[in-house]
Amino acid sequence: MIYFDNASTTKIDESVLSVVNNYNQNFFYNPSSLYGKGVEMSMEINKFKSTALSLLGADPFDSIVFLSGATEANNFAIRGALKKNGKLLVSNGEHPSVYNLAKQLKNEGFNVDYIKLLPNGQVDEQDLKQKLPGTTVVSIIHVSNETGAINNIARLSKIIKSYDNSIVFHSDGVQAVGKVDVNLTEIDCDLYTVSGHKIHGPKGIGALHIKKGVTLKPLLYGGQQENYLRAGTENLSGIAGLVTALDIAVKSRKEWAVVTREIKLLLSQKLKQLNKVWVLENEHSSSHVLVFGVEGIKSEILLHLLEEQNVLIGNGSACSSRYTDNRVLKDMGLTEQKIKTSVRLSFSKHNKLSEVDEFVIILNGIIETYFAKLLKR
Amino acid sequence: MIYFDNASTTKIDESVLSVVNNYNQNFFYNPSSLYGKGVEMSMEINKFKSTALSLLGADPFDSIVFLSGATEANNFAIRGALKKNGKLLVSNGEHPSVYNLAKQLKNEGFNVDYIKLLPNGQVDEQDLKQKLPGTTVVSIIHVSNETGAINNIARLSKIIKSYDNSIVFHSDGVQAVGKVDVNLTEIDCDLYTVSGHKIHGPKGIGALHIKKGVTLKPLLYGGQQENYLRAGTENLSGIAGLVTALDIAVKSRKEWAVVTREIKLLLSQKLKQLNKVWVLENEHSSSHVLVFGVEGIKSEILLHLLEEQNVLIGNGSACSSRYTDNRVLKDMGLTEQKIKTSVRLSFSKHNKLSEVDEFVIILNGIIETYFAKLLKR
Repeated sequence: MIYFDNASTTKIDESVLSVVNNYNQNFFYNPSSLYGKGVEMSMEINKFKSTALSLLGADPFDSIVFLSGATEANNFAIRGALKKNGKLLVSNGEHPSVYNLAKQLKNEGFNVDYIKLLPNGQVDEQDLKQKLPGTTVVSIIHVSNETGAINNIARLSKIIKSYDNSIVFHSDGVQAVGKVDVNLTEIDCDLYTVSGHKIHGPKGIGALHIKKGVTLKPLLYGGQQENYLRAGTENLSGIAGLVTALDIAVKSRKEWAVVTREIKLLLSQKLKQLNKVWVLENEHSSSHVLVFGVEGIKSEILLHLLEEQNVLIGNGSACSSRYTDNRVLKDMGLTEQKIKTSVRLSFSKHNKLSEVDEFVIILNGIIETYFAKLLKR
Repeated sequence: MIYFDNASTTKIDESVLSVVNNYNQNFFYNPSSLYGKGVEMSMEINKFKSTALSLLGADPFDSIVFLSGATEANNFAIRGALKKNGKLLVSNGEHPSVYNLAKQLKNEGFNVDYIKLLPNGQVDEQDLKQKLPGTTVVSIIHVSNETGAINNIARLSKIIKSYDNSIVFHSDGVQAVGKVDVNLTEIDCDLYTVSGHKIHGPKGIGALHIKKGVTLKPLLYGGQQENYLRAGTENLSGIAGLVTALDIAVKSRKEWAVVTREIKLLLSQKLKQLNKVWVLENEHSSSHVLVFGVEGIKSEILLHLLEEQNVLIGNGSACSSRYTDNRVLKDMGLTEQKIKTSVRLSFSKHNKLSEVDEFVIILNGIIETYFAKLLKR
């Protein structure tokens, strides 16, 4: 089987799973309990926070809040930063956990505006600048889950902060961590989202990085966990799994990127030689995502034809693939024809260069059979 | 070591852990993906929902939403049910994830009122009745995490619904499931919270039961998961772990309750024979919780003296033990003297009757040494 849907989710590493198991078996005490075993759990969490801050190149005095995943992190970051009468600015390239939240906040009466995308999938800096007046919170995805387009968060941060230093700037880093260089000191945004299951870690766990001095309102109320920022008994085994996966992802990033880059380049070249195939060319995009389509074969059909040959891929709209949402490609100016046929391939360290030829042969066969059948009709 | 702090958290069962591992290794695909493997994951989740509904004695057409734990379930239930200008009624015996949320909602401008407790720790039905006018949402804990007091949710539901059928009634069942009989058809509340890690399941996973026809506003926005009620990639291994633990807890409940009841009764008898010891007598309380104190030894001190002898217990205020909050015992009318010295013992299937004598000998030694030292001063 070829699994080219790693931007949707990845398989947990065996080494991560064994850490999760160890923590489940030997570190089950409640970190909030008063006795030493509880304090030990609490210290484990703090140790994982320090490690995560260091792996992300953040200031050791910044904070990390662990929570149930990137969706909660994005919801917490934006709702937590947005004050009454605040104005939220998000890009048209955001993941649904930011974009649909923005729509909801608009329904709730907040002032919400959207930043256009350039044809290459990055946010349009001129449009951002024009929409900054009155803005209190900005959220821009670091690497697009749909196209792999990389936003220069460091530069965007400078633009935003030089306009108004009090604007809170959040970036969803789910598809960036382990794929591109993430140094939060250089990036210099206020809030940054990390997910476990996109980097061969566990599902149900994520983290929000909070820069020193940035204050947020909690989303969940209850116990005193996470310094009152996120109530609920800490999922220590999940935290251990997330940070272990983060450690592997960050330290092996360059090595793996060589492989995914080779796969993407070779596949891109070979796809372009196939009849009726178009490939989305976007410089400044991550090596783990490649978007293409076959003229005349709709996304869902191509996806299922590939599935019949044991090839699993995503359609254009990412994690929530059943949700037909073409706003990202549309905003980039792709034709309706291309949007309807677009599919997303996404690679991980488990993919091999040999899968490129396998994939191309399978796809070529699908295209030939599909159009031969059409002719016969 | 004696672990008498099972109301705070429990150790995950080996059999549950092996289910979690199996799902992590073999069911990692994203349930939202369009291909068959994704649909399979989705069907697994639906299967676990049906099993959970059946184990809880609920209508098969009711819903279960899986989320990150009981704190999220309680926050989602209450905030999701409370409409603009709504009035929330909670008891003074609620867990912080309900009580502190209620305080927050009051700060946000909602009308919030509190139901008094009886001396036995149950909610005062007369007080509930008096406070129903104008109420739109009620939340009452099923079994108290601090005292084990069992509220008759079925009867309270009748009182509430006969007053006004449109009131949404939520109950936090975290300390009830696996300890007392939970039949949601008989109990007949609208929303019911279940936690994984209190029943030897994983941390970071919980469930909210939603009665057919009850509508809630989401807490997290994003993807289409959980029928748009709870965005975020589903934590299938956690779900599998929770429902496996629920299955074991429900099916073995009576068998284990015999042991914990014996432990509680014997311990209660023996404690009362000790010098300076008081025991909280409350009929209608769960067999897994016992509250007592030693006159003249403050809770935290007793907790640490027991810890030195390898006995782990909770103090009066449950999961969030570092949080000094005596509102529950205070509302029950206990003296300041008793409140200051109260500690909580909580038992699970892993405790043995033989631990009763061990505990009593250790406690007696502590009391004798403590007061002997005091006399020498």
